[in-house]
Amino acid sequence: MIVEMRRGASEEQVNGVVERAHTYGFETQLNIGTDKVVVAILGSDTGRVPTENFAVLPGVQSVTRIMRPYKLASREFKEKDTQVQIGDIVIGGPKVAVIAGPCSIESRDQFLSTARAVTEAGATLVRGGAYKPRTSPFSFQGLQEEGVNLLEEIRQEVHAPVVSEIIDPHHLDEMVEHVDVLQIGARNMANYTLLRAVGRSGKPSILKRGLASTVTEWLQAADYMLASGSAQVILCERGIRTFETSTRFTLDIASVAVVKRDSHLPIIVDPSHAAGHYQLVPTLARAALAAGADGLLIEVHPDPTNALSDGLQSLTFSDFRRLMADLRLIAQAMGRTL
Amino acid sequence: MIVEMRRGASEEQVNGVVERAHTYGFETQLNIGTDKVVVAILGSDTGRVPTENFAVLPGVQSVTRIMRPYKLASREFKEKDTQVQIGDIVIGGPKVAVIAGPCSIESRDQFLSTARAVTEAGATLVRGGAYKPRTSPFSFQGLQEEGVNLLEEIRQEVHAPVVSEIIDPHHLDEMVEHVDVLQIGARNMANYTLLRAVGRSGKPSILKRGLASTVTEWLQAADYMLASGSAQVILCERGIRTFETSTRFTLDIASVAVVKRDSHLPIIVDPSHAAGHYQLVPTLARAALAAGADGLLIEVHPDPTNALSDGLQSLTFSDFRRLMADLRLIAQAMGRTL
Amino acid sequence: MIVEMRRGASEEQVNGVVERAHTYGFETQLNIGTDKVVVAILGSDTGRVPTENFAVLPGVQSVTRIMRPYKLASREFKEKDTQVQIGDIVIGGPKVAVIAGPCSIESRDQFLSTARAVTEAGATLVRGGAYKPRTSPFSFQGLQEEGVNLLEEIRQEVHAPVVSEIIDPHHLDEMVEHVDVLQIGARNMANYTLLRAVGRSGKPSILKRGLASTVTEWLQAADYMLASGSAQVILCERGIRTFETSTRFTLDIASVAVVKRDSHLPIIVDPSHAAGHYQLVPTLARAALAAGADGLLIEVHPDPTNALSDGLQSLTFSDFRRLMADLRLIAQAMGRTL
Amino acid sequence: MIVEMRRGASEEQVNGVVERAHTYGFETQLNIGTDKVVVAILGSDTGRVPTENFAVLPGVQSVTRIMRPYKLASREFKEKDTQVQIGDIVIGGPKVAVIAGPCSIESRDQFLSTARAVTEAGATLVRGGAYKPRTSPFSFQGLQEEGVNLLEEIRQEVHAPVVSEIIDPHHLDEMVEHVDVLQIGARNMANYTLLRAVGRSGKPSILKRGLASTVTEWLQAADYMLASGSAQVILCERGIRTFETSTRFTLDIASVAVVKRDSHLPIIVDPSHAAGHYQLVPTLARAALAAGADGLLIEVHPDPTNALSDGLQSLTFSDFRRLMADLRLIAQAMGRTL
Repeated sequence: MIVEMRRGASEEQVNGVVERAHTYGFETQLNIGTDKVVVAILGSDTGRVPTENFAVLPGVQSVTRIMRPYKLASREFKEKDTQVQIGDIVIGGPKVAVIAGPCSIESRDQFLSTARAVTEAGATLVRGGAYKPRTSPFSFQGLQEEGVNLLEEIRQEVHAPVVSEIIDPHHLDEMVEHVDVLQIGARNMANYTLLRAVGRSGKPSILKRGLASTVTEWLQAADYMLASGSAQVILCERGIRTFETSTRFTLDIASVAVVKRDSHLPIIVDPSHAAGHYQLVPTLARAALAAGADGLLIEVHPDPTNALSDGLQSLTFSDFRRLMADLRLIAQAMGRTL
Repeated sequence: MIVEMRRGASEEQVNGVVERAHTYGFETQLNIGTDKVVVAILGSDTGRVPTENFAVLPGVQSVTRIMRPYKLASREFKEKDTQVQIGDIVIGGPKVAVIAGPCSIESRDQFLSTARAVTEAGATLVRGGAYKPRTSPFSFQGLQEEGVNLLEEIRQEVHAPVVSEIIDPHHLDEMVEHVDVLQIGARNMANYTLLRAVGRSGKPSILKRGLASTVTEWLQAADYMLASGSAQVILCERGIRTFETSTRFTLDIASVAVVKRDSHLPIIVDPSHAAGHYQLVPTLARAALAAGADGLLIEVHPDPTNALSDGLQSLTFSDFRRLMADLRLIAQAMGRTL
Repeated sequence: MIVEMRRGASEEQVNGVVERAHTYGFETQLNIGTDKVVVAILGSDTGRVPTENFAVLPGVQSVTRIMRPYKLASREFKEKDTQVQIGDIVIGGPKVAVIAGPCSIESRDQFLSTARAVTEAGATLVRGGAYKPRTSPFSFQGLQEEGVNLLEEIRQEVHAPVVSEIIDPHHLDEMVEHVDVLQIGARNMANYTLLRAVGRSGKPSILKRGLASTVTEWLQAADYMLASGSAQVILCERGIRTFETSTRFTLDIASVAVVKRDSHLPIIVDPSHAAGHYQLVPTLARAALAAGADGLLIEVHPDPTNALSDGLQSLTFSDFRRLMADLRLIAQAMGRTL
Repeated sequence: MIVEMRRGASEEQVNGVVERAHTYGFETQLNIGTDKVVVAILGSDTGRVPTENFAVLPGVQSVTRIMRPYKLASREFKEKDTQVQIGDIVIGGPKVAVIAGPCSIESRDQFLSTARAVTEAGATLVRGGAYKPRTSPFSFQGLQEEGVNLLEEIRQEVHAPVVSEIIDPHHLDEMVEHVDVLQIGARNMANYTLLRAVGRSGKPSILKRGLASTVTEWLQAADYMLASGSAQVILCERGIRTFETSTRFTLDIASVAVVKRDSHLPIIVDPSHAAGHYQLVPTLARAALAAGADGLLIEVHPDPTNALSDGLQSLTFSDFRRLMADLRLIAQAMGRTL
């Protein structure tokens, strides 16, 4: 951490900064320039102290962080790539994982037919929402317990692991039993109560990026899960909120490379929520693989025009099959399989 | 809702839109132009249906909402201003409410001295955090249960109602008993499980705007609380996330006027979190009153340089007294009292 | 500037950083921690060197700026507030300046009646657009030369200085002759050719903030004008682009306080463009004065429903008179006159 | 255009809307619902009228555009893809174009060696900046006229067309003579004086997206050029400004698909400015090709650590050769050549 004193700061003020650093067990070095004094605060874990604990001291002009504020999720903490194992499927290895299925589970038939179609086309995991966080209280909120039962039925029938979103720690026991991967949605990325609960379960989980979260805050949220005991966290980029309105969100494709550089956790991409429109999903899916994503999370529905949620961004079965063929070519160009 | 068909859409496709509208009980009117057909979908509650339920139909180019998607929070639903009553204090009336206190409760002494200082200076409610949602799991997380006990002690000792943030529905019973106003933080604005629980309690509550939420989504979140039975919701603008870095968030001062126009709920402003720096807090506080806010939520600490959280944006007691004097002049210029 | 080396950076790499600093004439100090080396680069004008000139060197992890990258516009360069003198009007002193008039000059009658109405109501300068930068080439582009002639006529007839936007350096001579204050619009904030030309003219000028510009970049743009010889620059906050859609732009009210703290230049606010709707203009205008703005730039039209541009955000004469009465009360509460 | 009247709007107010529509030569249809009247305004060119011309009328609640506000750049106006021809190179056809070279031309040697290295590696056009728009007036502003002379020399020596940015209409004649493709930078996207001048020249040109511009505004800017006579416009996505700070800008990868759907103009991507760091450039370049971009604009420098501008985001010759090999595989997977 670097503390820049104001021009004309007194010796006493400089000492105040030095003393505070010492209370945290950090070393300091003074840099006395013609105009200003700058105090360098050194130590391997200065990232754990908020910059404002120094910024608030008298005579301080600004404080700059050198160490990143996340820890367990960082590549400095663990250099080797984390691979998340779900049965015999590995996420974060050479094979790209495609997770596909409906936004909401609407009925046994709808879910089963979709699960069959996507696994036949090459998807290795099936997604389906039982509890749905919706912007309006007057929208369809998911089949809830009934949906969880269908997740259990279908994973046995289709022999594929299932992924489903958890929105309430109360549902944890039920979902841990019947679901293979727990998803934490973008709206809950900073719901720390939920992050801790899922982290403690040790279950493989997908942590979506909050729609106004920086990559740094996202990795701090992963820290909550890792600090609670989980080692099985998959990050999922799903678009951030910007001024652009031609898509539902703006897919931050560069975040894939930033996460790969700064963290050991695997990262997948959700092109469906980012695009908001089925026509744009294939483009974003291809770009995600070319950027090096470890997997994709794609919404597919047997009849999007009658879906109870997210129909506009859902692919039909034949759209999905066509996309998988395109993705195989990109995966191959990237030296991976799909 | 207005559905614009693609150029050359077939009669069958137009009928598809009309039929879907009828299934929701809406009326329709066709507008047949030289180039395109436009279907107007009419009804007093078309706002409850997502636009994508039409956008997904074949032959549709775009769908535009006419009715707002929130309902119970809208001024169309309830024309008269809602006034929230907390003991003998009214929020949303001619008197501006100032809620002040420390970010986190750190000790009995710290909280009591602050509560005394702010109420003597004219604050009518005291704030203090017991459970703290922090970006990093390694930061101070609040005194928790002990903090709630201090809230109870201090409200009796100072004879002022207390405001505190709730982050987990599990804490509801405990907090309903010892706290006068429950605050839902920005990070939890879309934690619908929490919104419903607080709504059901019927307790006066403050709903902070999510840092990437539009005013519309914020009012939809209020709908969750109102639909769960509460009639006592106070909105709180606290800044949104933008590209600007000289402040912690960008205070959307215009949202005060937009909420006043479109909703019946009272709105207050939190200048402390928006600014992120104590030097900028008075400016934002004055601007908020001049914009017509019904109150302010301000962080004050006996010794900001040693605060365990948010010290940089906390005012000292004397800063706060000086600010209150300035605010009285602005309130008066607005025809209000403070 | 603070250069953080990667863990394990070689002595040669550290020396590379030190040598580069010396080529710029800067001093350096090494901070050798347990984990990393940090090089502090000291000097009174390190702000003039881009951080990337160090970031690009081998072994460097990150570079952080300590000195601000703008210079002539900074309060460190000139401590005392700049006051811009236009005839006997001062902008940046105790009296708040109100600049009002139509977005576009449409005719002699329209402009004259507006100029009379706003000056009678207390405006001290009259605005009127002759050359209009419009998003679409098919929109009305202003009366152009004819508009400049009307600016000359009206300033003589109403005895008030006139403000008008310049969009092309070719128009400089013509506009310097007939206009008292040249306005540089938000879309041209980074049109450095134009900034230099206007700066060289020495004419009082208004520099609007670019809609995606940070306060720092805005002050760097002011540096272009100051470096070209002008000392008469007034900054104008007019809203930035964010995800919120209920207003045309998001007024960054805090920028008024940030500019007052970090720069000596006066700052005014344009509530009309930020709001985009006449109903919201008075709220933003009052908030601006309460935030400490030195003036306002407000669009007024005799018949907004028939305006050729920006009618929706224009006030009628009676709206404007009512607003001026409200503003007088706020100015008084701020210890200023209007 | 759809005009929604307020609840309780009078017949006279509705007639006001209808009459205004007729003055523009549009047809109207009334939709009278239980609660509100909605007026549909029909015609093939309603996009040319700003929505506010109706929003400002008494009794109107909101106005929604159906037709897009850009025209000449739209696929509705011209269905077939535009291909831009530069000598025997085509941009917008099956072959992906790679434009590479230094940010700034610094010397004959630097520019010649780079031009040779990139063309040998497969780049078909060479870029090099002579006039540089820099955020600070104290930064290197380019070699200017001398740079233009070097563009001429090098294009003859290397037998490749050259691309260079124009920042001032005054330089048009000089640049039209010596440069094959004129680039309009992001900061000048709304400098309409410059757009018209370049449009009138008829020269092939690259129009970069403004850093806070929507895709719609970008296509309106293209309309300025097309309306001035040019038919040779190439769009270039280079990242937009968002809250994320781990990259210089956020590459809006979806804009490639949106532009391909809604416009006939070719689109290329600049991964260098978006990333801001050479490590992230290859990821963004690969993603751009997988998204369907017609080309790339990449910064390459013989010695990035000593570049006078943008060194941090420049590739070395060997980085560039390695990237070209990767890109060939992606292009092939997309059914294109490179």
